[in-house]
Amino acid sequence: MPLNRDIYQALESILGAAHLTDQETDLQCYGYDATAYAGLPEAVAFPGTTEEISAILKLAHEHRFPVIPRGAGSGMSGGSVPCRGGLVLVLSRLNRILKIDTLNFLAVVEPGVVNRDLQQAVEALGLFYPPDPASMNFSTLGGNVAECAGGARAVKYGVTRDYVLGLTAVLPTGEIMRTGVQTVKGVVGYDVTRLLVGSEGTLGVITEITLKLLPKPETRRPVLAFFNRLDQAAQAVVEILHGGVLPSTLEFLDQPSIRAVEDYLHLGLPREAEALLLIEVDGERQEVERQSLRVREACEKLGATGTRLAQTAAEAEDIWKARRAVSPALFRLRPNKINEDIAVPRSRIPEAIRRFQEIAARHDLLIVSFGHAGDGNIHVNVMYDQKREGQESRARQAVEEIFKTVLALGGTLSGEHGIGLAKAAYLPWELDPVNLAVMKKIKDLLDPNHILNPGKIFPA
Amino acid sequence: MPLNRDIYQALESILGAAHLTDQETDLQCYGYDATAYAGLPEAVAFPGTTEEISAILKLAHEHRFPVIPRGAGSGMSGGSVPCRGGLVLVLSRLNRILKIDTLNFLAVVEPGVVNRDLQQAVEALGLFYPPDPASMNFSTLGGNVAECAGGARAVKYGVTRDYVLGLTAVLPTGEIMRTGVQTVKGVVGYDVTRLLVGSEGTLGVITEITLKLLPKPETRRPVLAFFNRLDQAAQAVVEILHGGVLPSTLEFLDQPSIRAVEDYLHLGLPREAEALLLIEVDGERQEVERQSLRVREACEKLGATGTRLAQTAAEAEDIWKARRAVSPALFRLRPNKINEDIAVPRSRIPEAIRRFQEIAARHDLLIVSFGHAGDGNIHVNVMYDQKREGQESRARQAVEEIFKTVLALGGTLSGEHGIGLAKAAYLPWELDPVNLAVMKKIKDLLDPNHILNPGKIFPA
Repeated sequence: MPLNRDIYQALESILGAAHLTDQETDLQCYGYDATAYAGLPEAVAFPGTTEEISAILKLAHEHRFPVIPRGAGSGMSGGSVPCRGGLVLVLSRLNRILKIDTLNFLAVVEPGVVNRDLQQAVEALGLFYPPDPASMNFSTLGGNVAECAGGARAVKYGVTRDYVLGLTAVLPTGEIMRTGVQTVKGVVGYDVTRLLVGSEGTLGVITEITLKLLPKPETRRPVLAFFNRLDQAAQAVVEILHGGVLPSTLEFLDQPSIRAVEDYLHLGLPREAEALLLIEVDGERQEVERQSLRVREACEKLGATGTRLAQTAAEAEDIWKARRAVSPALFRLRPNKINEDIAVPRSRIPEAIRRFQEIAARHDLLIVSFGHAGDGNIHVNVMYDQKREGQESRARQAVEEIFKTVLALGGTLSGEHGIGLAKAAYLPWELDPVNLAVMKKIKDLLDPNHILNPGKIFPA
Repeated sequence: MPLNRDIYQALESILGAAHLTDQETDLQCYGYDATAYAGLPEAVAFPGTTEEISAILKLAHEHRFPVIPRGAGSGMSGGSVPCRGGLVLVLSRLNRILKIDTLNFLAVVEPGVVNRDLQQAVEALGLFYPPDPASMNFSTLGGNVAECAGGARAVKYGVTRDYVLGLTAVLPTGEIMRTGVQTVKGVVGYDVTRLLVGSEGTLGVITEITLKLLPKPETRRPVLAFFNRLDQAAQAVVEILHGGVLPSTLEFLDQPSIRAVEDYLHLGLPREAEALLLIEVDGERQEVERQSLRVREACEKLGATGTRLAQTAAEAEDIWKARRAVSPALFRLRPNKINEDIAVPRSRIPEAIRRFQEIAARHDLLIVSFGHAGDGNIHVNVMYDQKREGQESRARQAVEEIFKTVLALGGTLSGEHGIGLAKAAYLPWELDPVNLAVMKKIKDLLDPNHILNPGKIFPA
């Protein structure tokens, strides 16, 4: 049902005219995310309270218009794209850090708080919020929770779901629900909190989040290592972990990534290396000192052709520069990319990368892989030029072959970006049909009129 | 509907006569758990495969007889007690460790594997499965997952839910469902895995579990500290955590617990101490050495009247003896106890303990508290003598006052034992009504005929 004049006026009376718009330019501004997907909503709302959101969803439930929750619009799977018109619900006004409890190590935040802002606020008090998606400088905690965002530190610290203790959410019917606890442990009833985490804005609009915090590690230190063969890098990862060191990050770049970064920044990276590992350890100063030496030794033992151990903050920054430059460097190779975030059991990374290269060769495309070696979560980038005949369709074909490869290796289609629009069609490739049927039934149960973020996750 | 002769014969043809019984002695053997609750089933089944369980649940769904999944029967909330007759489904034959993957740090187990057996098997390979409920020597991993068991190491390592990557479960309709992933990250669809974790055998029968493992810490070392005032101990906990040390366990005993243990074992514990802290750190040898000294310093700074730092394994064992002796020691005080496992934000522990003592005084009862100071999960034991007029009803009254106190302090009614039969009546005291309604709807959705573990979790 289209969002007609009566509904618009009802929304205006809930929100006030200043917080609702249907101006064409506004509609366009809130129709896209970080993917190539875009849509045009019929209106955009900027609610200021949980109660306003409740009133809006009651209206939507009654009149059956789509409501699409949106944080910073930095999602990587089209999750906040209004693909069926309706009302985009922008949560940027709900941006307060409501509490940082330094005795009980928890924070209570509204969904519009930017990840980095919370990190800085808690670190100033000697605390630590580990989840660090690459988008942390601009993505919001509401979006992080909705997508169950991961990040580089997941290998040691886990993902967003591991830090969410409780939520306030507005259900698609407009009911306001409080879940979870304020304690680290809590097993009263079903885990409705984690049912909402990663539900991509399809089961409820999250309006308050209680997060677990940790003590802030005293220091951290990165080590960089190059390997002529991918297998050596993979063995080094196992060697490090079995040696009792659990690094806070364990990142890798494949050869095309290394070359792209080197051509872009001229950092002196060896173009012949098949893999680069960036391993950061954190903790107490003396422990970090000792562990970083052990990491370097493990890499050398497994045949690293070169290693660098940061002695100063400037050197650490230099080491991280290589990792951070990958994404911008890629666009110098080809104007378009499809960025997938599959995960495989980490021992299968070398085989996965080799098969991706075979797929690239078969389709005459460039495929560049980098990501989280510690947890097997690889960002696979299929690079192409939309303007060149047939490249885009070959790229789409390559993505399907990548998915098949990943599933054959015991992996998953998304480690941290979610399904959204981008992978909805492929959901049945991975999920057991009974499990998928249960998910659909849960959606129908909580959103009988399918008004909340319709068209996402499930195949059409 | 009672389990009649026809159904019994149908079960026999699924299981074989050797794996089904309705002998009175057998029925009694499988009618209780670690609480005072007991019931009598109509039959007891010992299935050997997922497929047999599926066939049994299809039969139960059709003929509407209760099925009660059971691991070791060591539950602390009546979760596996057959309170409405029916069939007890004993999972002890499904007791194989199917895989330990030393490259990808994961294990695949059947539900009947005893926690300790998995711990020993993975530690022999340099790996580590952290969840350590006090029952770990006999409780099964299926039960641990069904209850989302915690343990002493939760303060550093989290609880069972944090280690479950995927499940095979048989739904109440008999359908076999596979959930989750084999990778640390995975965000494909809703988190049905964690919906089953902690669902206390009411949403599905878990038949296979994929668990995340960690590298085994090199060593561990306990520190014991006594405090004349409870507040000092609570401040020491904060001081330790803010100092950047995250202990693997952070246990406490209150004064009645200390006295009970001392009267029982004569370890030389100071009877005047209001609190004892047992703090264990783990990790690399040198780090553990340094951190245990820092822990002792923090305790001394906050006024500990005595500390002991284990120098040898024998000394470590001695220190742990005090903590392990609490439960047996309590029964020397009074013949009966009600053991609750509430949790409060850890800064509220002193206030909680003080209020519990006021409740004890008001009802002329003995209340003994000990547990996990790091995460606020306290085992509150209301001690009484059933044979003495009025004590039991006063104990029940005291428990209700304890619950009210805990909720007023921002806590939860169960940190790790679950709701089962024991706390079902109190569920609405804690849960938001919308959240509770959602839980009930999920139960109805997956188990429309209410055949799986009926009478548990939800108030009658």
